[in-house]
Amino acid sequence: MRTVGVIGLGLIGGSMAIDLKRRGFATTVLGVEQDPVAAEAAKTIGLVDDVVSYEDCIQRADIVVVAVPVSAAVKMVPDILNRFASLAGADAGEKIVIDVCSTKSQICHATQYHSRRRQFVSTHPMAGTEYSGPWAAQPGLFDGRACIFANSEDSDPRALQTIGELYGVLNMRPIYMNADQHDVHTAYVSHISHITSFALALTVLDKEKDEKHIFDLASGGFSSTVRLAKSSADMWVPILSQNHDNILHVLDTYIEKMKEFREAVSAYDEARLRELIAEANRIKKILR
Amino acid sequence: MRTVGVIGLGLIGGSMAIDLKRRGFATTVLGVEQDPVAAEAAKTIGLVDDVVSYEDCIQRADIVVVAVPVSAAVKMVPDILNRFASLAGADAGEKIVIDVCSTKSQICHATQYHSRRRQFVSTHPMAGTEYSGPWAAQPGLFDGRACIFANSEDSDPRALQTIGELYGVLNMRPIYMNADQHDVHTAYVSHISHITSFALALTVLDKEKDEKHIFDLASGGFSSTVRLAKSSADMWVPILSQNHDNILHVLDTYIEKMKEFREAVSAYDEARLRELIAEANRIKKILR
Repeated sequence: MRTVGVIGLGLIGGSMAIDLKRRGFATTVLGVEQDPVAAEAAKTIGLVDDVVSYEDCIQRADIVVVAVPVSAAVKMVPDILNRFASLAGADAGEKIVIDVCSTKSQICHATQYHSRRRQFVSTHPMAGTEYSGPWAAQPGLFDGRACIFANSEDSDPRALQTIGELYGVLNMRPIYMNADQHDVHTAYVSHISHITSFALALTVLDKEKDEKHIFDLASGGFSSTVRLAKSSADMWVPILSQNHDNILHVLDTYIEKMKEFREAVSAYDEARLRELIAEANRIKKILR
Repeated sequence: MRTVGVIGLGLIGGSMAIDLKRRGFATTVLGVEQDPVAAEAAKTIGLVDDVVSYEDCIQRADIVVVAVPVSAAVKMVPDILNRFASLAGADAGEKIVIDVCSTKSQICHATQYHSRRRQFVSTHPMAGTEYSGPWAAQPGLFDGRACIFANSEDSDPRALQTIGELYGVLNMRPIYMNADQHDVHTAYVSHISHITSFALALTVLDKEKDEKHIFDLASGGFSSTVRLAKSSADMWVPILSQNHDNILHVLDTYIEKMKEFREAVSAYDEARLRELIAEANRIKKILR
């Protein structure tokens, strides 16, 4: 008998709710969703057994999953730890809260000295799509992907083990990492990709104002590079703010690389273009 | 009884060879491939009925498909038209040469005043993958995609009709366009995507030198935005050179957009980030 409470029934929270229930990890899955339209949708789709209040969820759940944008999660996780501290009952000390946010430094710093820190496990399941909301939730979203455990030495080993089982049920591969190191790495392999897609969309949409039919020509290559530009501002603005320093660093490197291309194209320097492309082709050895 | 000769048995030439034969458009498909390893592979895979010399191909084929990088095609198409002019036989005036290159202005200019210009149909089948060589050829590559006919008023109407049938067999949707206009549009919806992917790969590969395991974290989003960085220099250096002016223009707009993001991130300007992302999200209404 285990109750999981999911706060935020979007793509990530909703998909976790589906598989934790289907695969038998949770006997009951409770959901919290402040947006009434999304809450209604989650009920209609049947993502959770019941949509409840924030307070109810914390009271009743053995494991609380915080699946809201990172700006909200940074305040919510300490609040939930406070509530754990003030709950009556022997099992209040056994409750666990986890977050699933894409940046880890701020949330780990915000909880670092909390008396209940050991009941918090900070994770980042590296899975998703460019869609959002309960409508985007899907079974199997996490299968085979990596899940990062940030600053796991600050969590209680039993809590860590339980959450390890949770992600095991979702078929995720655990990676243990320092929160700051996590934020450097995701700036490179996730956050920058979103900015390049947003900028690409803006560039082409600018042109579209003058030129009709430009999108008749959009090839598969364009669709794939611009796909992430559909991602929601609600999720991405807080990520870009929280991972500010790392993202600026990557952006500067990236803009430099674009300028190198610009100079080589401008100078008709085919030897240099060939070098740049050959160097970029090394990505073949890394990508699946 | 129709013989198609394909010069360049790579991704595009090889894929055309497969479907033109399978779907009965060509009785015989001849191939020309100067790289001996690729030629041997094309024979082994059975892409064409016979691998022949350049001269033989032009002599025997009713339709010659030039599927080589655009820098070579710009010289090869006029040469083939010269050879058509000097061939004996009544049918020499009925032969057709087509190119399938990603830039159209230079090749159309290079042939504009040729006495045999009307035997040339300039096309751009908008299909492909990031892979190259005969190993990358595949059936069905062109199905459902757009094919651009550039400056089609300079081609003989019967030649145009025959090549219309050829692309009809490949299930492509024809779009008629001025060569210069084509090059503007493809700079936006194809060429820039490749440069952003190359630059992204270079940025991340730079970081990889210091940080191990960074690619453990590569998510689906990263893979999709960086996919085109696997594309070959042989194909892309000539495209970037030939479409020089348009590409510089798009690059400048793109770099501006990246700088806008950089400034908004740098200033923690969440309102501006939200605006930029919301504007970029408009791509949803356009992409499939």
